[in-house]
Amino acid sequence: MENYYHMSAYIALLVVTSSFVAYATDPTQLQDFCVGVNNLLKDSQITVVFNSCYTNTTLSLLVNGLFCKDPNLVEPEDFLFSDLKVPGNLNNMGFSVTLVSAMNLPGLTTLGISLARLDFAPYGLNPPHTHPRATEIFTVLEGTFYVGFVTSNLANGGNKLITKLLNKGDVFVFPQGLIHFQFNVGNVPGFGISGLSSQNPGVITIANAVFGPNPPISVDVLAKAFQLNPNTVKYLQAQFGMPGAY
Amino acid sequence: MENYYHMSAYIALLVVTSSFVAYATDPTQLQDFCVGVNNLLKDSQITVVFNSCYTNTTLSLLVNGLFCKDPNLVEPEDFLFSDLKVPGNLNNMGFSVTLVSAMNLPGLTTLGISLARLDFAPYGLNPPHTHPRATEIFTVLEGTFYVGFVTSNLANGGNKLITKLLNKGDVFVFPQGLIHFQFNVGNVPGFGISGLSSQNPGVITIANAVFGPNPPISVDVLAKAFQLNPNTVKYLQAQFGMPGAY
Amino acid sequence: MENYYHMSAYIALLVVTSSFVAYATDPTQLQDFCVGVNNLLKDSQITVVFNSCYTNTTLSLLVNGLFCKDPNLVEPEDFLFSDLKVPGNLNNMGFSVTLVSAMNLPGLTTLGISLARLDFAPYGLNPPHTHPRATEIFTVLEGTFYVGFVTSNLANGGNKLITKLLNKGDVFVFPQGLIHFQFNVGNVPGFGISGLSSQNPGVITIANAVFGPNPPISVDVLAKAFQLNPNTVKYLQAQFGMPGAY
Amino acid sequence: MENYYHMSAYIALLVVTSSFVAYATDPTQLQDFCVGVNNLLKDSQITVVFNSCYTNTTLSLLVNGLFCKDPNLVEPEDFLFSDLKVPGNLNNMGFSVTLVSAMNLPGLTTLGISLARLDFAPYGLNPPHTHPRATEIFTVLEGTFYVGFVTSNLANGGNKLITKLLNKGDVFVFPQGLIHFQFNVGNVPGFGISGLSSQNPGVITIANAVFGPNPPISVDVLAKAFQLNPNTVKYLQAQFGMPGAY
Amino acid sequence: MENYYHMSAYIALLVVTSSFVAYATDPTQLQDFCVGVNNLLKDSQITVVFNSCYTNTTLSLLVNGLFCKDPNLVEPEDFLFSDLKVPGNLNNMGFSVTLVSAMNLPGLTTLGISLARLDFAPYGLNPPHTHPRATEIFTVLEGTFYVGFVTSNLANGGNKLITKLLNKGDVFVFPQGLIHFQFNVGNVPGFGISGLSSQNPGVITIANAVFGPNPPISVDVLAKAFQLNPNTVKYLQAQFGMPGAY
Amino acid sequence: MENYYHMSAYIALLVVTSSFVAYATDPTQLQDFCVGVNNLLKDSQITVVFNSCYTNTTLSLLVNGLFCKDPNLVEPEDFLFSDLKVPGNLNNMGFSVTLVSAMNLPGLTTLGISLARLDFAPYGLNPPHTHPRATEIFTVLEGTFYVGFVTSNLANGGNKLITKLLNKGDVFVFPQGLIHFQFNVGNVPGFGISGLSSQNPGVITIANAVFGPNPPISVDVLAKAFQLNPNTVKYLQAQFGMPGAY
Repeated sequence: MENYYHMSAYIALLVVTSSFVAYATDPTQLQDFCVGVNNLLKDSQITVVFNSCYTNTTLSLLVNGLFCKDPNLVEPEDFLFSDLKVPGNLNNMGFSVTLVSAMNLPGLTTLGISLARLDFAPYGLNPPHTHPRATEIFTVLEGTFYVGFVTSNLANGGNKLITKLLNKGDVFVFPQGLIHFQFNVGNVPGFGISGLSSQNPGVITIANAVFGPNPPISVDVLAKAFQLNPNTVKYLQAQFGMPGAY
Repeated sequence: MENYYHMSAYIALLVVTSSFVAYATDPTQLQDFCVGVNNLLKDSQITVVFNSCYTNTTLSLLVNGLFCKDPNLVEPEDFLFSDLKVPGNLNNMGFSVTLVSAMNLPGLTTLGISLARLDFAPYGLNPPHTHPRATEIFTVLEGTFYVGFVTSNLANGGNKLITKLLNKGDVFVFPQGLIHFQFNVGNVPGFGISGLSSQNPGVITIANAVFGPNPPISVDVLAKAFQLNPNTVKYLQAQFGMPGAY
Repeated sequence: MENYYHMSAYIALLVVTSSFVAYATDPTQLQDFCVGVNNLLKDSQITVVFNSCYTNTTLSLLVNGLFCKDPNLVEPEDFLFSDLKVPGNLNNMGFSVTLVSAMNLPGLTTLGISLARLDFAPYGLNPPHTHPRATEIFTVLEGTFYVGFVTSNLANGGNKLITKLLNKGDVFVFPQGLIHFQFNVGNVPGFGISGLSSQNPGVITIANAVFGPNPPISVDVLAKAFQLNPNTVKYLQAQFGMPGAY
Repeated sequence: MENYYHMSAYIALLVVTSSFVAYATDPTQLQDFCVGVNNLLKDSQITVVFNSCYTNTTLSLLVNGLFCKDPNLVEPEDFLFSDLKVPGNLNNMGFSVTLVSAMNLPGLTTLGISLARLDFAPYGLNPPHTHPRATEIFTVLEGTFYVGFVTSNLANGGNKLITKLLNKGDVFVFPQGLIHFQFNVGNVPGFGISGLSSQNPGVITIANAVFGPNPPISVDVLAKAFQLNPNTVKYLQAQFGMPGAY
Repeated sequence: MENYYHMSAYIALLVVTSSFVAYATDPTQLQDFCVGVNNLLKDSQITVVFNSCYTNTTLSLLVNGLFCKDPNLVEPEDFLFSDLKVPGNLNNMGFSVTLVSAMNLPGLTTLGISLARLDFAPYGLNPPHTHPRATEIFTVLEGTFYVGFVTSNLANGGNKLITKLLNKGDVFVFPQGLIHFQFNVGNVPGFGISGLSSQNPGVITIANAVFGPNPPISVDVLAKAFQLNPNTVKYLQAQFGMPGAY
Repeated sequence: MENYYHMSAYIALLVVTSSFVAYATDPTQLQDFCVGVNNLLKDSQITVVFNSCYTNTTLSLLVNGLFCKDPNLVEPEDFLFSDLKVPGNLNNMGFSVTLVSAMNLPGLTTLGISLARLDFAPYGLNPPHTHPRATEIFTVLEGTFYVGFVTSNLANGGNKLITKLLNKGDVFVFPQGLIHFQFNVGNVPGFGISGLSSQNPGVITIANAVFGPNPPISVDVLAKAFQLNPNTVKYLQAQFGMPGAY
């Protein structure tokens, strides 16, 4: 009797399913559009069954950005994202963000822009963070916000804070790479929409990235850098042992 | 008796007060920010009065984009635009657009992004147009829209129309440089917000640019290009003898 | 008796064989050259025949632009295009274009430039069109042309037409993304050569993209946008139910 | 007797003398070189003395980056920086940085690169910081360093710390925009040289930008963001009431 | 009696009138067009005559690329170059080049492309050279040419020569920055047109730049680099004591 | 009895293992980092053994730059290069270069910068060469150097040599694409470190690329270009029949 072996040759062109972002100057598109393929694993498994051996090979390949879908297979839904009507789930800061980037709106690939809905509980806070690859232009749709950004070390004589109180209909700019925050100073929920100058803007929540990475930064470094005693550093590391929200 | 002459040496570093736009890949910023100076004429007139002659020289100089304000004079208001709360004035298509670009939000200069509020009367239309320097990502805040874009001549076997019916909370992408439109198909007003991947995205309303430029395109060219008789061309030229809305 | 099944696992890295174009700022090359691979299907089919099942999987993967050929296999012919000596076939406008882009001259990939030969019958017309991803610099080799382009809506106070009568040896620039045309005003054939600032400049023939896409744009939208009655719109849609020439 | 009035018309084309930086993709040069002019005030004062009025006007104009010197006046010294032989003055972290950017090596303007000498006392620390506009490639010339960077929020499942112990001759990369640090873990001084992918890379020292900007960020925001009590926030603000070193 | 002094305050925003060139990725335009101002001296002299002193100040300021003309003053001629009908004057290599760049066709500014007419005597040679900022795509209009380029040191196992014999209608690509040449191998004159992927592509004729700069490179360096005896180096320096043709 | 055939389907995504380089404006990264995969052949061979035929197909695919490694598999070593402590092997010019680029430090991929250690014997020479895709910023760590670069043909009135004598701690800039050299004028060894504005800067050693490519440039072309007699050309070709050092 014959024995049939199987070979599963996964040509898995994985795409990072997470935080990649793109600067204000994303490389330009070289065709009308590129509908990003961000879950190639599912679509591209090739299982070869044959009768002499069993091999299971996974090859993960990425490119700068995303692979593109065959344009003959593109559908209108590739350019659509439908879940921006309702607020996201608020985190412990009373804040949520729903990001529409090339990762969940594949038609954005190569086009250098993304969008986010920001929701805030009363006194909710989008804590100090940077977008390593995008400028943000924020429009208040509901609520009153104390917002600000800090210039880099030497601009205009050192770290300068630029703040503004924003009301409904106000638009404010947070330049690329600078630390900024948005604080709902009203006792009612608020929300807004931000445009971001990248297909994948990225976010670095300062407190989480400094005190919460995995593995943690050495206590010695943080104690010296923040001029805190080691116990306070350890307390902070305990608070932020989770990655920041997007 | 002496005769005092005047010399007005306008060192007028004019900035085009109108339609300039920037592609998805605007050149990147080379400092934290550049607050654009878009009305230099007013600020920079230098009038030299002296006693031997009268000369009035205007020197208009521009750069690619905008000159930047002295960063020591930058104020929070340079990053703020406050007029997006209310709809703009609707035109004869039942449509209005309020663009927030580097021209009216000077802090956007060099940052590669802009924003627009789009308002529609019932059955209002943002007619077929292109943004020569930006992709648009449109979010419906109120209303129901029939939207679409057309691929370029040879993509996927010729000009292909990609359309979608959008409801509140839907997000749709119009790739850079392609002809697209938004049509409010509901009997109530609608509006939305668009992010654009340039500090100055530009707009070319097709009907106006073809049939309405100043001076007009020759009737011979238009009759042949659109396979219309000359009288129909002249009729259309009469309808569109005005520039398109932004 | 055994039954032999077949599996054809097409690892088809398709490259769009059609309309992709690249802006004046195509992303720069990261090696001496990249000879584009634009017919991967033919070269890369992998048919696996085996004895237990039959599966036919096609996986089409693209990148922004084109994949590159192994540089060790590059030949001088990869940098050569040989068919620009003779005119192309004239269309119903009395016009033909032979485009030399990364699609048919693979050595142009990543290099940000392409070329076209434009031929005109007497009174032939290259009708109003845009290149979404390139500026065009046109040199007249034979003939006399009425050429022009239209600025965007708000430049210099609205859509402004800039025209010129060109003779042999004249060179004229059509800035990126703006609507432009070339009309042979002589009663003899004419031709010229254009450089385009992209490896794949793209073209959108206005009449065809507006009145001829597949499927057509709704008559309601076009009637309102062009202020025409629905019957005239339908007449125009019948004229342009074919994609524009490249 | 006549009365001579003076008019001092300072055509002051100021250049920000401080922190501007440029991303990995600084806009490319459009000539062989552009020797930046970063102290125009001194060179360009034009004092007009005349007999009817006194006016003192200062017009400060900047561009994205720097103005260029007349190439006919360029000298070899414009491409030279001579002070990298000796360590800089160490700050309270036991660290100093000497940055060679377009601000003090004017020939770097438009060329997209800069350099820094980093000096460390025993156990000296370059505390967590970002370069908003550059990747850093660091070479150890003397000493042993514990270095690391943190990925952005969603990369690879949250803020991930990537660290390495570096010895003399080791080269390490800190990708653009990510928080990173360098800690001399030896009991002898150490130093190294870093290349940065911008003519003006910028730096944001996290502790100083968060707890030390002028004016300070609201205690409410910081207490909530870092989950600290207000007194601890005020303590930290007292420690960092000075801008970070470059 | 009064004595009238003169002050000539030349606000001379000089533009380098010579060799600047731009890479395949010239920074993108930020408006419909920028008509370069390349002879500001003539237009912008401001002569202030007054009665107390004489001062003559020339302030030369450039930007990366060119300043732009006030768009309200733009004329169709700004986009036209009319002298490409006839061959240029042949040099001692039997070669001439007429370059149409942003320097003599101001409407090309910011648009990332230029053009050249190349003329060759029988056996005329465009000697080995590079374009530091552009790829060249060459079309033969008359003649037969032996053309080639050399890859960089390590590509494909060292400097590899790629050559081709070109006839009328052939198009060939010379990738950016690589050394290349064109040699008319026929006994009749030949000519062609080249597109270049920059508004100002630059050219470095190898023999002239190595053996003919002003001042000369030290004989020691050249003798060692080319493994020639000093007398041969001096002979070559005598031959090339003139800059190369554009 | 059955006959088992084999099919070896090598999905070989080769990466050029050699000289590619990237301009000052490398396309920007679209994620935190891309660890380049530069030896895909080894990792990605897929051998399918089956029972009806034998096929051996090698498909080599590259992208502009490099493919990226699955970020979940990234390790700190991907950002480390450890061999810069010691000098490289000196060539016949008394010179060696150790380049740290995306080819041997994969974490540099997409980040637009690289580094090199340059070592010189007494009177060692880095002969005239260009980097087609990078500006170089050179720091002297030991020794005294005569360095220089030559402007392009028309800059400032022809090929102009700009030189400087450098001592320890001096930093000098060689703008992108221009011919330059470094000569150790001391009787002791010297070395320095250069930053280069590309992940893969490329190098073209002039003498080798002109007189030493494979196959050689025609003697006729070189004799005419350098105004040498054919025998001298043949002598030079014999000297440089080897590619230049990196």
